[in-house]
Amino acid sequence: MIQRPPALEKLLEILRSLPNVGPKMSERIAFHILRMPEDKIRDFIDILEASHAEVRPCPICGHWDDSSPCRVCQDPSRDKTVLCVVENSQDVQAVSRIKNFKGIYHVLGGTLSPLEGIGPDDLQITSLLKRLETEPIQEVILATNSDMEGESTAQYISKQILSVSAKIRGNGRPEGIKITRPAQGLPSGGELEYMDELTLTHAFDGRREFDRN
Amino acid sequence: MIQRPPALEKLLEILRSLPNVGPKMSERIAFHILRMPEDKIRDFIDILEASHAEVRPCPICGHWDDSSPCRVCQDPSRDKTVLCVVENSQDVQAVSRIKNFKGIYHVLGGTLSPLEGIGPDDLQITSLLKRLETEPIQEVILATNSDMEGESTAQYISKQILSVSAKIRGNGRPEGIKITRPAQGLPSGGELEYMDELTLTHAFDGRREFDRN
Repeated sequence: MIQRPPALEKLLEILRSLPNVGPKMSERIAFHILRMPEDKIRDFIDILEASHAEVRPCPICGHWDDSSPCRVCQDPSRDKTVLCVVENSQDVQAVSRIKNFKGIYHVLGGTLSPLEGIGPDDLQITSLLKRLETEPIQEVILATNSDMEGESTAQYISKQILSVSAKIRGNGRPEGIKITRPAQGLPSGGELEYMDELTLTHAFDGRREFDRN
Repeated sequence: MIQRPPALEKLLEILRSLPNVGPKMSERIAFHILRMPEDKIRDFIDILEASHAEVRPCPICGHWDDSSPCRVCQDPSRDKTVLCVVENSQDVQAVSRIKNFKGIYHVLGGTLSPLEGIGPDDLQITSLLKRLETEPIQEVILATNSDMEGESTAQYISKQILSVSAKIRGNGRPEGIKITRPAQGLPSGGELEYMDELTLTHAFDGRREFDRN
């Protein structure tokens, strides 16, 4: 084996620490970076510095943005009574593609995962419950992923909200908070024969009368 | 859609320009970078700057290293009569794992690819031919990949070397230069039933008498 320059070894090491980047891919990316012309690498570094300095989690909802509070929390046209709880900031972006949803968000920053040592205190759950006490929220959509971690996180948060909801009701608020979860079923364009059992079970359990119009 | 911070858009754009990084992956990497603590992002930037400044192609063989000429070209224990021609610097690293090979290298910087507009002048072929005239090279191993581009590049270089070789012979050097190419056949651990037709053809064409000892 030929010894590699220490600077290249360090570059490979830090690239491998990025999500989904394995040894082969780290090499490809490393040599792509080494081959960048001077002005391109300068740009790259400037962009890394600027984005890291400017883009921060919103102190209210946790969505990553360059304004504080974020542009969603500052938007007066949003329906402040419907709050969508998501795992991360990318999910905010995904949900924002739904034309019919004009509510606000709350970013948990992950899901409960006992195996990885992620408990309730590692997620933005306390701040979520605080918001329910102080903001005029009537519905919470628990839009965590429909995998095991997402399901159990939704379960946990739902229970927490119910207790807070009872407290709020005691404090004079007329109704409890409605808790919903996105429907599970066949994805659009999904072919029955390729669907797993759980997806099919959810799709059949949640079947609705066919709309003949 | 919620508008994204311009700094984040720029970060996503430059990440997508890296090899094998698609839209989803660029988002994962971007948020991983945004979440890095201050000292980690500083490290990342320092490593990018240092590696880009220090690691350069060797003026003799084209291998990327932090010394110039590179550590292979400077190594007195290397057999300077056997030159291995490879596509890129990662291939030097791969070939260097072969215990029996102690020769020197020449990095082409790619392969001929008319479709991508890469011709002979875009590769380090002229410098290779110069080396054959001035260095005591007796064998050239054309170790380009065994795909179409690699094969045709090896073909092209072989022809170029033959003409130079004739010239050298005219200049008083006793013999021509031997040109070889790594054997093609079954990869170690390869299962016959999963091999493509071309691999099997090469393996059968190149069959050797079974060694019974």
